[in-house]
Amino acid sequence: MTPSAGDETLTRAATLALASVVEPGSGQLLTQVRDYGPVEVWSFLLRTSADSALAERARRYRPAVMQRDMHRHGLRFLVPGDPEWPAGVDDLAWSGPVGDVTGGAPLGLWVAGPGNLRDLTTRSVAMVGSRSSTATGDVVTVDLSAGVAERGVTVVSGGAYGIDAAAHRGALSTDGATIAVMAGGLDEVYPSGNAPLLERVRDEFLLVSENPPNQRPSRVRFLARNRLIAALGQATVVVEAQVRSGARNTVAWAHSLQRQVLAVPGAVTSSQSETPNQLIREGEATLVTCAAHILEALAPLGDPAPRPETPTLPIDGLSPGQKAVHEAFPARSARSVDELAYDARVNVRECMAALTVLEMRGLALPTDDGRWRLVRKPR
Amino acid sequence: MTPSAGDETLTRAATLALASVVEPGSGQLLTQVRDYGPVEVWSFLLRTSADSALAERARRYRPAVMQRDMHRHGLRFLVPGDPEWPAGVDDLAWSGPVGDVTGGAPLGLWVAGPGNLRDLTTRSVAMVGSRSSTATGDVVTVDLSAGVAERGVTVVSGGAYGIDAAAHRGALSTDGATIAVMAGGLDEVYPSGNAPLLERVRDEFLLVSENPPNQRPSRVRFLARNRLIAALGQATVVVEAQVRSGARNTVAWAHSLQRQVLAVPGAVTSSQSETPNQLIREGEATLVTCAAHILEALAPLGDPAPRPETPTLPIDGLSPGQKAVHEAFPARSARSVDELAYDARVNVRECMAALTVLEMRGLALPTDDGRWRLVRKPR
Repeated sequence: MTPSAGDETLTRAATLALASVVEPGSGQLLTQVRDYGPVEVWSFLLRTSADSALAERARRYRPAVMQRDMHRHGLRFLVPGDPEWPAGVDDLAWSGPVGDVTGGAPLGLWVAGPGNLRDLTTRSVAMVGSRSSTATGDVVTVDLSAGVAERGVTVVSGGAYGIDAAAHRGALSTDGATIAVMAGGLDEVYPSGNAPLLERVRDEFLLVSENPPNQRPSRVRFLARNRLIAALGQATVVVEAQVRSGARNTVAWAHSLQRQVLAVPGAVTSSQSETPNQLIREGEATLVTCAAHILEALAPLGDPAPRPETPTLPIDGLSPGQKAVHEAFPARSARSVDELAYDARVNVRECMAALTVLEMRGLALPTDDGRWRLVRKPR
Repeated sequence: MTPSAGDETLTRAATLALASVVEPGSGQLLTQVRDYGPVEVWSFLLRTSADSALAERARRYRPAVMQRDMHRHGLRFLVPGDPEWPAGVDDLAWSGPVGDVTGGAPLGLWVAGPGNLRDLTTRSVAMVGSRSSTATGDVVTVDLSAGVAERGVTVVSGGAYGIDAAAHRGALSTDGATIAVMAGGLDEVYPSGNAPLLERVRDEFLLVSENPPNQRPSRVRFLARNRLIAALGQATVVVEAQVRSGARNTVAWAHSLQRQVLAVPGAVTSSQSETPNQLIREGEATLVTCAAHILEALAPLGDPAPRPETPTLPIDGLSPGQKAVHEAFPARSARSVDELAYDARVNVRECMAALTVLEMRGLALPTDDGRWRLVRKPR
């Protein structure tokens, strides 16, 4: 049956209503919506006499209040099939559960900002980590984020203190794009200490939430939010995270979504590097140290990342005999050709030829009395 | 032909003579010795009229001087087949070349110290890294070395400044064993700044060298020495190393010897962690962060290392409903059961049951007016 324009209006209204009352990531209700459609499920919720919190919330729902709140805060509500609906979150229909969150694709998403969520997430990476990050972790995150963002990759994160904030800042520091996925309603940003940063993300790109306005973040909402972060990136990068960390949860969602997980190693003396180091050791994440490594993971079939160049030393390319003569020099004093030849285990002809090469490379010089000395002894 | 006692004396004398004049790791001469025996090769070297540095050195070799030097410095010379000959170095016959060093098993080894080289290397690990290590790298190395040494694993290293010295110190700090493999003759220890440390290694365990007394270290001898370090451990651990580092060379020998390579990750902002991070990323090394990981690598069929325990929080094991009620509490003020039930999306009966559990866990308390408040809100 092809839905008419009227059907579409009803479907959207029922989806908005359901998304306003259901806890994010509630798998059972999502299954019902998939099987019966949002209009049927919503009608049932309003008719049921069951003593359920969900039904009670449904009866209290007021569409006009929702419209007013959305208008007041500049929000729009996206549903599956909308041109702006992000392809990545549909993968959630086949993923999970992870921990207490059943999972499933979101019924709909509230967004705020000028960005197009679908376009911004065609090439994107989730970047997550500890709220109590180290200064080093922040610097590394800004570097990585700026490095991928300036190559057209949107950086998706959760707007929290620490690594999340550094991820958003890195992208904003260049002309790249960034998206913050919130665990509460978009009427106010959380945490309030990041308000200036998150308002800039909203004004230039996008804030995204599965939660209706006036809903404050909770533990389950943070966990359900993590699955959206994992789904909105083609890969998830963990920069710093302690053993017990929300980043672990995001990683579990990324794995459940068959997304690649990348992790930045850190000192074994830093508790903030325990999770990335452990993920790498156990083969759950690929070690990355620079933006090029992340870009390589996003385009596994494209050109590999350029390998950092090894610096060239003057002794590179010398033959073993030439190196032996070079090594036969004392650090400061001069030596005769015979002495050098003897210690280098080469004959005098070979030694003379080697000295010519060393002189051409600026490594050795003849002295006035016919002996030779080192110009500089690299080591 | 079974060698007689006289043959054995000749063989040992010729091997000592050859080892005294040949550059370590010279593949061609090693092949000749394997094919014709040391007595034949030595005789040929003395007879040849060729203008070669090696022949010249052979003609200048004086057995009595060697015996005097060995006695003076308390050295003994081991040859293959000796009860103290270490099993690991024989694997070198089938490995290499790496870089400028052809490789091959050493003709013989000079050792100094009370240890038995064969016994000490039946369970051993090579630990190598940068001379210009960071303070963190030194601390980590001492920890790892002490951790494996106190479990009966001998720590093999090169006696250099930085990671090498920390590796020896870690083993000495416990009742473990350590061996230093030198790139020059054992008449004097190198570098002289490590003399007190290396003299202690010699007095309690062993110094080992492929080089005769009075031979100073050189670049090629350092490289040839690295292959012995790799061969004398069942695995090689790299703690810190810059892109251009001798540790890379030791790793190449370990790979050539089919030994496992382990690497300690580090901050991506530290140039000293570039090599270990890169080895891990490229699958050339397994990430290790603690002694248990190294022990696990040495005994892959034994018990796996104990996994670090995740700390337990009071909210662990709560049902989703109980967690939701817990989350519905404001941080400081009290709330009625009805209010909590509404916000937690549970009915009043479920909420009461959840509150009982939270009270038992010391998370929530009833107030005098019949409401409830949080005891402490973990995050």
